[in-house]
Amino acid sequence: MNISVHAEVDLNAVSHADLANAVRFLAVDAIELSQSGHPGLPMGMADVATVLFSRFLKFDAAHPNWPDRDRFVLSAGHGSMLLYALLYLTGGAVSLDDIKAFRQWGSKTPGHPEYGHTPGVETTTGPLGQGIATAVGMALAERMANSQHGDDLVDHFTYVIAGDGCLMEGISQEAISLAGHLQLGRLIVLFDDNGISIDGPTSLATSDDQLARFASSGWSVRRVDGHDPEAIAQAIAEERQTARPSLVACRTIIGYGAPDRQGTEKAHGAPLGTEQTAAARRTLGWDYQPFVVPIPILKAWRLIGQRGQVDRLAWLDRYECASPAQRELFIEGKVLALPSAYAQASAKLRERFATERPKLATRQASQQVLDGIASSIPGLIGGSADLTHSNLTHAKTQVPVTRDRFAGDYIHYGIREHGMAAAMNGIALHGGFIPYGGTFLAFSDYSRPAIRLAALMRLRVIHVMTHDSIGLGEDGPTHQPVEHLAALRVIPNLLVFRPADAVETLEAWDCALEATTRPSVLCLSRQALPTFRSDARGTNRVARGAYLVVTPDGGRDVTLIATGSEVSIAIEAARLLATEHIRAAVVSAPCFALFEEQREEYRAAVLGIAPRVGIEAAVLGDWPRWIGADGEFVGMRGFGASAPAPVLYREFGITPQNIAEAARRAIARKSQ
Amino acid sequence: MNISVHAEVDLNAVSHADLANAVRFLAVDAIELSQSGHPGLPMGMADVATVLFSRFLKFDAAHPNWPDRDRFVLSAGHGSMLLYALLYLTGGAVSLDDIKAFRQWGSKTPGHPEYGHTPGVETTTGPLGQGIATAVGMALAERMANSQHGDDLVDHFTYVIAGDGCLMEGISQEAISLAGHLQLGRLIVLFDDNGISIDGPTSLATSDDQLARFASSGWSVRRVDGHDPEAIAQAIAEERQTARPSLVACRTIIGYGAPDRQGTEKAHGAPLGTEQTAAARRTLGWDYQPFVVPIPILKAWRLIGQRGQVDRLAWLDRYECASPAQRELFIEGKVLALPSAYAQASAKLRERFATERPKLATRQASQQVLDGIASSIPGLIGGSADLTHSNLTHAKTQVPVTRDRFAGDYIHYGIREHGMAAAMNGIALHGGFIPYGGTFLAFSDYSRPAIRLAALMRLRVIHVMTHDSIGLGEDGPTHQPVEHLAALRVIPNLLVFRPADAVETLEAWDCALEATTRPSVLCLSRQALPTFRSDARGTNRVARGAYLVVTPDGGRDVTLIATGSEVSIAIEAARLLATEHIRAAVVSAPCFALFEEQREEYRAAVLGIAPRVGIEAAVLGDWPRWIGADGEFVGMRGFGASAPAPVLYREFGITPQNIAEAARRAIARKSQ
Repeated sequence: MNISVHAEVDLNAVSHADLANAVRFLAVDAIELSQSGHPGLPMGMADVATVLFSRFLKFDAAHPNWPDRDRFVLSAGHGSMLLYALLYLTGGAVSLDDIKAFRQWGSKTPGHPEYGHTPGVETTTGPLGQGIATAVGMALAERMANSQHGDDLVDHFTYVIAGDGCLMEGISQEAISLAGHLQLGRLIVLFDDNGISIDGPTSLATSDDQLARFASSGWSVRRVDGHDPEAIAQAIAEERQTARPSLVACRTIIGYGAPDRQGTEKAHGAPLGTEQTAAARRTLGWDYQPFVVPIPILKAWRLIGQRGQVDRLAWLDRYECASPAQRELFIEGKVLALPSAYAQASAKLRERFATERPKLATRQASQQVLDGIASSIPGLIGGSADLTHSNLTHAKTQVPVTRDRFAGDYIHYGIREHGMAAAMNGIALHGGFIPYGGTFLAFSDYSRPAIRLAALMRLRVIHVMTHDSIGLGEDGPTHQPVEHLAALRVIPNLLVFRPADAVETLEAWDCALEATTRPSVLCLSRQALPTFRSDARGTNRVARGAYLVVTPDGGRDVTLIATGSEVSIAIEAARLLATEHIRAAVVSAPCFALFEEQREEYRAAVLGIAPRVGIEAAVLGDWPRWIGADGEFVGMRGFGASAPAPVLYREFGITPQNIAEAARRAIARKSQ
Repeated sequence: MNISVHAEVDLNAVSHADLANAVRFLAVDAIELSQSGHPGLPMGMADVATVLFSRFLKFDAAHPNWPDRDRFVLSAGHGSMLLYALLYLTGGAVSLDDIKAFRQWGSKTPGHPEYGHTPGVETTTGPLGQGIATAVGMALAERMANSQHGDDLVDHFTYVIAGDGCLMEGISQEAISLAGHLQLGRLIVLFDDNGISIDGPTSLATSDDQLARFASSGWSVRRVDGHDPEAIAQAIAEERQTARPSLVACRTIIGYGAPDRQGTEKAHGAPLGTEQTAAARRTLGWDYQPFVVPIPILKAWRLIGQRGQVDRLAWLDRYECASPAQRELFIEGKVLALPSAYAQASAKLRERFATERPKLATRQASQQVLDGIASSIPGLIGGSADLTHSNLTHAKTQVPVTRDRFAGDYIHYGIREHGMAAAMNGIALHGGFIPYGGTFLAFSDYSRPAIRLAALMRLRVIHVMTHDSIGLGEDGPTHQPVEHLAALRVIPNLLVFRPADAVETLEAWDCALEATTRPSVLCLSRQALPTFRSDARGTNRVARGAYLVVTPDGGRDVTLIATGSEVSIAIEAARLLATEHIRAAVVSAPCFALFEEQREEYRAAVLGIAPRVGIEAAVLGDWPRWIGADGEFVGMRGFGASAPAPVLYREFGITPQNIAEAARRAIARKSQ
């Protein structure tokens, strides 16, 4: 519907209740039409959201990517119709037809808000707790950007609507604790404190005093009647002034307005039904047909959507006065490009690694890469979940970000792998930064839900995951990631790299930094590995996913395919086999996903037609894709053990001798 | 070393400091010898642990599985030498030779404590936060068992040593919140509040007021000097009296006694080195050679290890008076067997399903299974992470467990998937119960670290994970588990079931309940599925992992292998192919791991030699193991989408027509 909005619309004739009810009934009607969805939150939080959008949120609906907008995160993503209603009403990218196509194939209004799919959606939410943790990253990015570019260019708030579920999920504690520690005063969480979750009253499962909990992490906290617009407005206004992150617990009634369902779990996740929908219309005095928003109310909402134009135009004036580099940075939707200084730094490292051929753990190689390139990439933000000295993620030029000095480029995320991964998502979503963060590969399990969301959102975030196999040794099976490579490789749109030497480590970093629409995981060894690559210049071979490292003269009898720390063992095995006049090719396969994307001819040339042996200090997982259903595989059959790494490799049989034996078996079987 | 302990040993001649220093230096010396390990915690918490073990902990070192012992959980598992030293000193299953073999291949003293590997280790710890969350399950199990069997048989405490890392991990919040809600007064957490983590002072990353945080979840809290034995003793004594779970924040100095390292991160995770080891000996006045514990001190410790004999003998007297069923239940190390009533209930269900052949979602079939069997299995404890009505995990006979009535058999875990999974581990570890708990399969990512530990510990816990594919429909890609089946299948020792109809669902439950040394995940559909199995009696076919559902007459041209909701689609495809005189066998493969364990002859008979097509509404993952490197696969290539389920199946091409087309391709390729 096209509506021309003139300034003379009398906003005073439109009440807060009208505005809020427009949100409520768009949600109710869309859910009713699709016979699927969650009316409880949109009806319960319509008042809070209306106050936020109409009086506080700095946004220009026509320019949802304006860099200095306030961020609004619906952490309780099941309440998606609240957000879609607001996007439609304010004149954003959601049309009435989109609203009517709620939860239908191809619509802009999927069941949960999806970043990149619907303009105006700041982050994908649904898995509870992710939104609030991602918002912490956004609020942190805002302060970091502000410290670099000043109030003129960066000066916005991050608002979150979170439900009981978000606050019960453990990730919320990691987020709350980090935000409190860093004193992210521009983060305001509006808690839909309705006392109801899916099983019934929240008292079935929780007795937490949320205000006291947030306060214990240094937040400013208060409670407010979530159906009293003036009280809500006062709370937000005051919390905007505090130097601390703020929690406003909004006492609301879930499904507000549906007489027989409100205040109970029945309002949460199912359409109201014809009878309750009609009853809600009567209760709230909304005498309009489904999907009808009276023109004055719609015009009032559209004006709200244009409220930020003034701010945006003023910002554009300041933008014009900014430095060229800043102007480049603050182009809407701009993807941060890697500067030429980076390419030079990278080439220099490449030459050194290939020439000196050091024996280095790939985590150490990664440290040298970071030392070499970090200062050349503005916006590169490092960090670790309290394993800085093990992950070797801190470049010598990097300075920690603290509450007193946001102008840093290294974040001590604390022992919060999940919160770190979500915060990294938020930092990437905010824009202006390329975040990377470290932990042990085994703990990728902790951060997995946030890694998945990064893949779904197509974000450039880089996970540095060291201690990538039994090669970590004595810490034992709890810390030895035997199944994590396989488990990460199955996440769509995620690049999992396992470089085999210093040159491959550099190339993997290069791929990860260049991958603007995919997250990456760099799986790095604790133990030292020889550098076998000696090509000081030339193309990035890791970018092909897999390639030939050893090509025997006169054809091959067997192909050994290995990754990471096992490539050098495979090369040893090839030498052994050569003494028996068995010609073994060796393939390094640092990234299965990229290899899968190569042309079939390339793949066929690399894999060859000789029998194959897969080698990886991990479980079989998806290796049969490369070695066949019953292919020979030298790896792990179960969990690891605690012992020095060389002992483990020997005891678990990941040795040149065993690889050679597997090669002989493969050749014998093929020739049968 | 064999030591005869006589009552006349003068305990008064042995000071607290002697006892604690024996712990400290066994840890220091073992770490020094192995050149690997974490001295910081054993040195810092030796005083607290010594007070706990010498004055409070109810245990009999000679009987580490005595059912009514207090449980001691070292949540900060990297401090394993603290526990090993205590096990040796008290006369447990760890010898001095074991101590000297710390972190070596095959020793009883791996890098982190491993349940099932070292008697006296109550749970595997190392991944931070798991221990405290597992302990919540143990403390809950104690109260549940107490409510059934009374103080005479069940009356013990659960003590935890947790570090900063444990409390920063999000899972700790889920655990703390649940424990506070249920008022688990017999849970006492001793927080190693040393202000240091790996990166440096904890002030780098956290500003939490832990006492206020725990108090906000209803805990009794206090702070104590962790090097003052009398203050520690008073704190524990008083906290044992509170009706609430207790946090005692013990202010300690990490690496206490090593003059140049104590109080800094340098003491955490590396051997002290010769010089600091000698300096620590001087500082603490421990003038003995490495690994030497003077006889009087060792005798005093051995007496401590025998202190619980009196309690245990008294308990055995009461045990003799208990009912036969109770005596059966409280046999040390006894694995709960399924009673004959269960077999009868199961057979009755089987007959009904196979005869009536209902069209049911497998989650509904699971509900009917639970309704049929729950009351027949004493100790079966259900629950859900706030998705009871979606997971259909609540059997009609089940009663919720509450703080006022522990005599229930259903737990409202709240929106805490990770905490639920860890609590289930603790309930299983405690003994006397078979826990199962529900959530959506997509959220297995949240509980994954605890599922992994269950697999590593060989625990019988059962995860009911519904909404197992795009078949959940409108909730969209955040909730659609496209990669989770593959990601779970790679966890060693985990049984992942995806039953295809009501009979298979029953059989999968049967397998899971019978699997006493493995955790299971039941992946269940949201959408209705026809029951194709009509064998009202006979063997459990799911137990073979995969089996023939359709065997065409006169041999086969192609084999369609499917799981869960796709089996009935594959059967449809076989019918389509039959109209073209293509003979398609259909294999249902509800559990890859069990199929892998079958004899090769059986596997070959099921798979056949015809070309194969894999069908699963999920990513390719490990399917090439069954269909070959380039096998035909009908499934997902990426994330799902939001739309009604039938639309999604059509749009993503998981249809009988496409399966038939893939079959034709496979046949054509083979005949080339």
